[in-house]
Amino acid sequence: MGLIGGSLGLDLQAAGAVVHGLVHRQATAERATARGLATRVSTETAVLRDCAIVILALPLDRLLEPDPTLLAALPPGAVVTDVGSVKRPVLERWGDVPGFVGSHPMAGTAEAGVEAGRSGLFRGRPWVATPDERTDPGALAAVRQVADALGARWRCCSPADHDMAVALISHLPVLVSAALLQTADRGAAAEAGDIPALVRSLASSGFADTTRVGGGNPELGTLMARCNRQAVRLALARYRQTIAALEALVESGNWQELRQELGACATLREEFGGGNHQGG
Amino acid sequence: MGLIGGSLGLDLQAAGAVVHGLVHRQATAERATARGLATRVSTETAVLRDCAIVILALPLDRLLEPDPTLLAALPPGAVVTDVGSVKRPVLERWGDVPGFVGSHPMAGTAEAGVEAGRSGLFRGRPWVATPDERTDPGALAAVRQVADALGARWRCCSPADHDMAVALISHLPVLVSAALLQTADRGAAAEAGDIPALVRSLASSGFADTTRVGGGNPELGTLMARCNRQAVRLALARYRQTIAALEALVESGNWQELRQELGACATLREEFGGGNHQGG
Repeated sequence: MGLIGGSLGLDLQAAGAVVHGLVHRQATAERATARGLATRVSTETAVLRDCAIVILALPLDRLLEPDPTLLAALPPGAVVTDVGSVKRPVLERWGDVPGFVGSHPMAGTAEAGVEAGRSGLFRGRPWVATPDERTDPGALAAVRQVADALGARWRCCSPADHDMAVALISHLPVLVSAALLQTADRGAAAEAGDIPALVRSLASSGFADTTRVGGGNPELGTLMARCNRQAVRLALARYRQTIAALEALVESGNWQELRQELGACATLREEFGGGNHQGG
Repeated sequence: MGLIGGSLGLDLQAAGAVVHGLVHRQATAERATARGLATRVSTETAVLRDCAIVILALPLDRLLEPDPTLLAALPPGAVVTDVGSVKRPVLERWGDVPGFVGSHPMAGTAEAGVEAGRSGLFRGRPWVATPDERTDPGALAAVRQVADALGARWRCCSPADHDMAVALISHLPVLVSAALLQTADRGAAAEAGDIPALVRSLASSGFADTTRVGGGNPELGTLMARCNRQAVRLALARYRQTIAALEALVESGNWQELRQELGACATLREEFGGGNHQGG
């Protein structure tokens, strides 16, 4: 019943569904009930009984090492899906559970907790499903029905392709952006005199934009790197080589090629949506 | 009479000054006149005659290799200042010109041309002056009066400190951000199948924010690197080492330290203004 679970509860009720919410703490149950995030909210797994679809809206670490009482309480015959931002380890853990469909609704991650859920979070946003050879087609269709009801953009791909894509466009930016904050801080501290105060005073909207995701939730950033380690390592190594290539252009004074590279980047940014997307 | 020159003309007239604009092309002169960017606009250097303050709002390359007819037309006794985003090479070229003050009003750079100028661009934004031992105190005070009249935040530092600070918070972000676009593109292209289309379809607002400055004006990015080469090289080398250090944490699975580093970044972002600034 956090940002993702709470938002799902609001939109699914609006679409006519009866929604039962399972939470860990009684205070959360009361607050989720007060906010109307579900038809019924409880700390008891019995609340899952008779649910046709179970959506596991858990942090990645708890999703990958699920509570045995949760596993025991999954209703026989139910469709089970998740919202995790990494898919290979999720399929390794959950792929053999009957009715399981790996999925990832890609919506904002800046807020968290029982106050964060809001209506319309998934509208126009990608909802990626990652079926494999074990996935039941009927279960996949049921999850798609949920995504469609919420106005999300449905897309299927393999778990490995998903994880490589999000490493490049979601997990790498967090580390790239964090490294810029560290470099501005340590680079300024390494210089004498005014520079540490100067960089803080002069940092503008360009710096703020480029460092937004790097200054985000550290738990989430760490979980992404941990759970998508292989793809994130590959992306980081590739990125470091790209930085070294730009460094070589500056070192050799090859301004014509630097101009070409930056020109190509302006075109690339359009291809990647250039700020027309919303959410994270 | 571009973004900076045109905006200066609008605000200075509003503050009661008579503003003469010198431009290269007759069509620009007509458009600048129609937009009211100056009291009088001309392609003839004679328009500078009797001006008490000359503000050189030129691209860095033309500022560093100024037209001899411009130099010859500077009115004797005038205060002369610039708006260049790099200060050491500007002081090397202009520091011996009587009445010269190096300065850098730090305002947005996304737009350009005679249509870009607008009122209030400098309000609340830093205006950095970089006096050296040759700078006349009266000339410095006159430039400060301009900055104050426009509501800018006045700040003085050495040319070298300015150039190192902007390398870290303004020029490095452009290259960091461009390298992310290149890595997402080439990393996806290196994988088989769906991934190039997938990364373009799934890139979200986080990716858009982190790549905004890297997809900007390629001429400007190249000029920044070229004119601030030494500081930009140092910043890039330091940044590459920071990326390598994060890579080592992911490689060794040191999640506790990664968590600490990302936590420190969240604090750093607040110190650097965290998006409260406007402009570039």
